[in-house]
Amino acid sequence: MTGGAATHFADRLIDAMDRAGAPTCVGVDPVFEKLPQVLQRHTSSKVHAIERFSVDLVRAVAGVVAAVKPQSACFERYGSTGMLALERVCAEARDLGLVVILDAKRGDIGTTSEHYAAAAFEGYDADAVTVSPYLGAETLRPFLDTGEKTTGRTKRGRGVFVLVRTSNPDSDKVQGLTLRAGGSVALRVASLVAKLGEGRVGERGYSDVGAVVAATKPKDAAKLREAMPEQLFLVPGYGAQGGTAETVRELFDAKGRGAIITASRSVIYAFNPKLGDWAPEVRAAAERFNEEIAGVRK
Amino acid sequence: MTGGAATHFADRLIDAMDRAGAPTCVGVDPVFEKLPQVLQRHTSSKVHAIERFSVDLVRAVAGVVAAVKPQSACFERYGSTGMLALERVCAEARDLGLVVILDAKRGDIGTTSEHYAAAAFEGYDADAVTVSPYLGAETLRPFLDTGEKTTGRTKRGRGVFVLVRTSNPDSDKVQGLTLRAGGSVALRVASLVAKLGEGRVGERGYSDVGAVVAATKPKDAAKLREAMPEQLFLVPGYGAQGGTAETVRELFDAKGRGAIITASRSVIYAFNPKLGDWAPEVRAAAERFNEEIAGVRK
Repeated sequence: MTGGAATHFADRLIDAMDRAGAPTCVGVDPVFEKLPQVLQRHTSSKVHAIERFSVDLVRAVAGVVAAVKPQSACFERYGSTGMLALERVCAEARDLGLVVILDAKRGDIGTTSEHYAAAAFEGYDADAVTVSPYLGAETLRPFLDTGEKTTGRTKRGRGVFVLVRTSNPDSDKVQGLTLRAGGSVALRVASLVAKLGEGRVGERGYSDVGAVVAATKPKDAAKLREAMPEQLFLVPGYGAQGGTAETVRELFDAKGRGAIITASRSVIYAFNPKLGDWAPEVRAAAERFNEEIAGVRK
Repeated sequence: MTGGAATHFADRLIDAMDRAGAPTCVGVDPVFEKLPQVLQRHTSSKVHAIERFSVDLVRAVAGVVAAVKPQSACFERYGSTGMLALERVCAEARDLGLVVILDAKRGDIGTTSEHYAAAAFEGYDADAVTVSPYLGAETLRPFLDTGEKTTGRTKRGRGVFVLVRTSNPDSDKVQGLTLRAGGSVALRVASLVAKLGEGRVGERGYSDVGAVVAATKPKDAAKLREAMPEQLFLVPGYGAQGGTAETVRELFDAKGRGAIITASRSVIYAFNPKLGDWAPEVRAAAERFNEEIAGVRK
């Protein structure tokens, strides 16, 4: 942030990607059984272990990638103590200059969305949150309104990424259904997302209403890009879920921009679990991921 | 529970509805600004106020209605302390013999759904949780698997209610879309829900995979009932959201069963905010609600 004025979320994210040299995000999805043995054996509780791992993970990737995406579910499973750990992980990431995208996939009727928005932007103070469109895109407007209120106090613009096309095979059975009016459910949701994001474009040309579009459905990519010219795409599924450099390429726009690629398992568990000093291996994996994605855009 | 064997979720819920004399559920959606003045003014924090209100609310409706539906968002907005309050509210409700349906509307890819399921059934120890189908019904299977593991330890069968047709006007723009193959998105999701629930039917004839079907979309009711003969419908939208006795009637099956009706604002805020002794007024409103719904079924 360069001045006293609030900075639009999309501009902030693009600045962070420019600093990183690639549009990259690391998913913070800590699972106790996958942690380094030293953390599994020498911590007082599972939730303490995932907190220590996540904080050290965030430190390891800071200065390499643009953003982190904490997976709310991995913390929620430990109840209130897990949520306290999530608060600390988000704070650590913000303090290190990483953009924090809370992966929560919330969605409810409008009055309830207000509460979820308060949780994301006031409780966890995240820069953006993933949300679900099944109840209609208008139910997501409270996320935008709450984001604006929060921005007013903190000078950090907030954003949302609406689920449009997800990476799992079974998503075809809902998102991939063909409508009588033509196109798929995902494509119609894309239009709703584009409309929700209208008039919310920052100086760099993108709206603070983004979309989750997986790297594993390449044949949809061009149509979704066309339907959402102003949306930043949050792209999960790179690496462990099957997304490749080739499928990712299709998701950028004509300027080679407009998407941020997320890797989770392929980076955060890239260590020998028996070694105590695991963080340098994760940092090296994040650097490789960053270079791969930087190469894709050329 | 009558013996040592685990009791199927749907059987337990039907038993609870029989005891209550009506298929009724009260939504626990505490919002600080709507609480009785005594709680707004004389509590040490907002989250403490919503916890006290919710615990007393649960006590007020116990013995009247069959179930309570805590709204996770109302607690999450207060971060980890809010989640601690939610844990206590769920525990209080269970101890009073109420069936606890956690309204969380979670949904993610399979590996992440496992964590959300652990949060719902192990963390909050809820009897059932609401889930979202946008990523495909198969992504919800971890909720069933985790429910079974939890049932094995606690002897209380667990269930899910999948969002099919919600009460808000904007839901038409996604759930109401017509497919090329015929029928709406909601109707196709209904088929997926029916399939997910196959072979999971209890002694009373219903699956532990239920569906959220609103009382505000009466013209869809008959088709959804036909597509989901084994599903219990969790019906929001009664009272404040516009559902009426007439629209609710269509959601029961031929036996006058198969649905549980939820009221939130119309019951939980049915008090004079200036009065200190608000709980008896809420109990009276719950009794009126119960009688109305008992009348609908006849």
